[in-house]
Amino acid sequence: MPAHFGGSDPPAPDFAVYNRDVVSLSYTCTTDGDQLANYVPEGFELIRPELVIGFGQLRAIDWLAGGHYNVVTADVPVRFTGKRDRLEGNFNLVTWENNATPIIGGREECGVPKIYADIEDLHVKPAAYLGAPEYFTNASYDGNTFIRLEMHGAKIVEDKHLGELRAAFATINLFGWRYIPKVGGPGAELSQPILYPQGFEVDSAWTGSGTVQWTKLRPEQNPTLWHIIKALAELPIIEMAPVLMYKGVAILKPSQGRVLE
Amino acid sequence: MPAHFGGSDPPAPDFAVYNRDVVSLSYTCTTDGDQLANYVPEGFELIRPELVIGFGQLRAIDWLAGGHYNVVTADVPVRFTGKRDRLEGNFNLVTWENNATPIIGGREECGVPKIYADIEDLHVKPAAYLGAPEYFTNASYDGNTFIRLEMHGAKIVEDKHLGELRAAFATINLFGWRYIPKVGGPGAELSQPILYPQGFEVDSAWTGSGTVQWTKLRPEQNPTLWHIIKALAELPIIEMAPVLMYKGVAILKPSQGRVLE
Amino acid sequence: MPAHFGGSDPPAPDFAVYNRDVVSLSYTCTTDGDQLANYVPEGFELIRPELVIGFGQLRAIDWLAGGHYNVVTADVPVRFTGKRDRLEGNFNLVTWENNATPIIGGREECGVPKIYADIEDLHVKPAAYLGAPEYFTNASYDGNTFIRLEMHGAKIVEDKHLGELRAAFATINLFGWRYIPKVGGPGAELSQPILYPQGFEVDSAWTGSGTVQWTKLRPEQNPTLWHIIKALAELPIIEMAPVLMYKGVAILKPSQGRVLE
Amino acid sequence: MPAHFGGSDPPAPDFAVYNRDVVSLSYTCTTDGDQLANYVPEGFELIRPELVIGFGQLRAIDWLAGGHYNVVTADVPVRFTGKRDRLEGNFNLVTWENNATPIIGGREECGVPKIYADIEDLHVKPAAYLGAPEYFTNASYDGNTFIRLEMHGAKIVEDKHLGELRAAFATINLFGWRYIPKVGGPGAELSQPILYPQGFEVDSAWTGSGTVQWTKLRPEQNPTLWHIIKALAELPIIEMAPVLMYKGVAILKPSQGRVLE
Repeated sequence: MPAHFGGSDPPAPDFAVYNRDVVSLSYTCTTDGDQLANYVPEGFELIRPELVIGFGQLRAIDWLAGGHYNVVTADVPVRFTGKRDRLEGNFNLVTWENNATPIIGGREECGVPKIYADIEDLHVKPAAYLGAPEYFTNASYDGNTFIRLEMHGAKIVEDKHLGELRAAFATINLFGWRYIPKVGGPGAELSQPILYPQGFEVDSAWTGSGTVQWTKLRPEQNPTLWHIIKALAELPIIEMAPVLMYKGVAILKPSQGRVLE
Repeated sequence: MPAHFGGSDPPAPDFAVYNRDVVSLSYTCTTDGDQLANYVPEGFELIRPELVIGFGQLRAIDWLAGGHYNVVTADVPVRFTGKRDRLEGNFNLVTWENNATPIIGGREECGVPKIYADIEDLHVKPAAYLGAPEYFTNASYDGNTFIRLEMHGAKIVEDKHLGELRAAFATINLFGWRYIPKVGGPGAELSQPILYPQGFEVDSAWTGSGTVQWTKLRPEQNPTLWHIIKALAELPIIEMAPVLMYKGVAILKPSQGRVLE
Repeated sequence: MPAHFGGSDPPAPDFAVYNRDVVSLSYTCTTDGDQLANYVPEGFELIRPELVIGFGQLRAIDWLAGGHYNVVTADVPVRFTGKRDRLEGNFNLVTWENNATPIIGGREECGVPKIYADIEDLHVKPAAYLGAPEYFTNASYDGNTFIRLEMHGAKIVEDKHLGELRAAFATINLFGWRYIPKVGGPGAELSQPILYPQGFEVDSAWTGSGTVQWTKLRPEQNPTLWHIIKALAELPIIEMAPVLMYKGVAILKPSQGRVLE
Repeated sequence: MPAHFGGSDPPAPDFAVYNRDVVSLSYTCTTDGDQLANYVPEGFELIRPELVIGFGQLRAIDWLAGGHYNVVTADVPVRFTGKRDRLEGNFNLVTWENNATPIIGGREECGVPKIYADIEDLHVKPAAYLGAPEYFTNASYDGNTFIRLEMHGAKIVEDKHLGELRAAFATINLFGWRYIPKVGGPGAELSQPILYPQGFEVDSAWTGSGTVQWTKLRPEQNPTLWHIIKALAELPIIEMAPVLMYKGVAILKPSQGRVLE
């Protein structure tokens, strides 16, 4: 959209998008499964009561002419059981991005619930006299901070574990839910579970400790979406796995996306 | 989207969005009708071979908690003839906005083909020693300027003409085309002509002279949308009406939007 | 600087800078005088134990070609007593601005201690269903909110009081302290009290209630300047005068600035 | 400035600033020596008639808490001959940066003529179907593009040449001219040639071809500094050396800076 200026040829079926220079942080939080299940729609069920908060600094993105953007994601491990499809993967509850172009495409073409936030590039190795975490970043909306992410004591992941990580990340079933309202509302014109196949070639990885710190916003600080921050901030963090940082190449396959049945 | 966190109650049928502090500039360019017609989809026909480039500085927007954004628009005067509907109004070829939140809503709820650009606030009355236009602004993408708008010699619109202007702007049929692709493509999942009723309460207005100056971009400067700028820049400007600047309140009625039939 | 490309002719002695479209909010807070006096340098003494936090949305700035920027200021009412000069005015403790160009000039030419922050345009009259203040804004650094300003229940200032306000704002002695370090440090190459004459033509004004809310930052959130926010946030607010909002034209007279003696 | 809130202890004499993750592009242009000499102040003389345009993407900057900024620089190779000092190095004609914090410090503490511009992060390896340069970036002011930099056909610099490059970059004499005007003007309160010692630990490097493309701005597009862009854009490019890209660690030693005599 706009479609009336013509557009690109349909991509080949093996078309893939390459983000060639990615740094990611991943925070796996065990939470209350019943509370979390409230946000997982029909057809999906939780595999584990886990909320995974991720940060991604995506650079050298080929379809953006080597451009870049940052993301903060909230995913849960799920199983989809439909009439035909039976798949495990990550259901994306919400994705914040600091660039409108991939927001538009990701929402409309793939059902990823992307919304806008200002997201700082990763701060890396501040001077010792500042007494700061080794890595940190934040996201804000209209100048209102709503999440801070930190990592301390990063230790490199060695060969065997790195191999396991590489295998685990090689193929990712990302699930979304595409919802397009009726014009004039109420109700949906489209409401569909979506599979968006992705993968990540891990070059190197580190584990450490760290924190996810939410700041709830008042309605006027993020008028359309404050309730999402509230919902996520109110999920209890019962236990946190080691924080994982990894670098490498993300490969997205939008033309292999499909509506789940 | 995301829909799984719950949402707002359906708005009342008379729900309206108020942009309480708006400054607009409007450039009506007579162009080649055949060339322009290429960008107007089935069901619509040109009333006049006119391309209307608009700039809007929208402030005190109630649903954004009194926030603000800027727009650059390209509209054409059209008549829609369907099985049931027969309406005149403005078909929006493209709308650039510098805020992702209204882009998402406008596209998905109302079929307005909004895309992102950095858009400067209006520059107003520079110091005389700069030798500059009285009013000017520009839009750019990733640091690449693609349009400049200027106005000179602004004279206030007097009572009778102001009354005519107020009447003409009180009700506006804005037309869009909502296009949502099939997941995995190619082709459309939704492809619909849309009516989005709007109005503008004009407080005061000025006319003057001025220019629209396009700079075409190379594909890498706006990878997904450079072809739109090219298409508009290549429309010849055969004649330009006086530039119109007006201030007042814009009233948008998304809940009265509907698919045209 | 750079000076080697040539520059402007020296301005005429009556040269003035016009900010033709200004909205200001002013929060006068009675605080602890001893604590406040710590931040007021030699030669100046407090007239009243008041910290005045101001917000300014400056538009139609002639020397910026009709451009704009926002400011957050912290001033105290002082008397300067030097060998020759004996003046009352406002000593500027710190000024945050969201535009580097006036920061550079204000610091180097006039000794105003301007530093950078992201400062939101004023939010004005949000939709009632958001339950928000009538006017509000905030400032942040690298995505970290450090001050929020709100105003409620604005009532217009009537004729007589408006006249008094106009008279009071017609001429303002703004005081700064220009400090330029020795290259390679430590110590000062220049350290001078400065007078920067200004004025404000008030068009209209409102009073209401409101709040100033600080959020202290950790060193890594604003590495060079977190201690300033800490100092201001720790000043107790003993009493607050009604919040004042006023609109009009600010007139700055840099060429009448001088070093106080 | 502001100095009245206290500040940091004077840094140790061996204090250094580390930018731990830097990507630089360097364009060495042979130009007209007489024309170039117009911009080189007294005490300095050209060694070669070369204008060196540089781009730097500076990340993991320790004193900014691991933060980042981008720069575009214009340097010339010079010899300083004073009463005591006789040194060769690079005279900085102008430095654009997209972050006000290092602009303030660099100007006031070290005499580097830093001014503000929006500077894109480096675009890296766009998709082949875009037909774009391998690396490119640009700088703009208020949405007005004024310089584009491109690099094609990058080939890695091999061992022996890499060693020479490392040696050449290990120590850099950066020269600036600190100019602080009299309050109220005209004329200078401080006007001093400055040495700012720096170094660069080159990890890896590439050479290729590429271009520097200026777009002159009108006064209203950059009211205070358009004449600098004009001056640089009007220097003829007689010959261009291969474009150099290098990555590594930049080490700045502000506490070893001094006024040249």
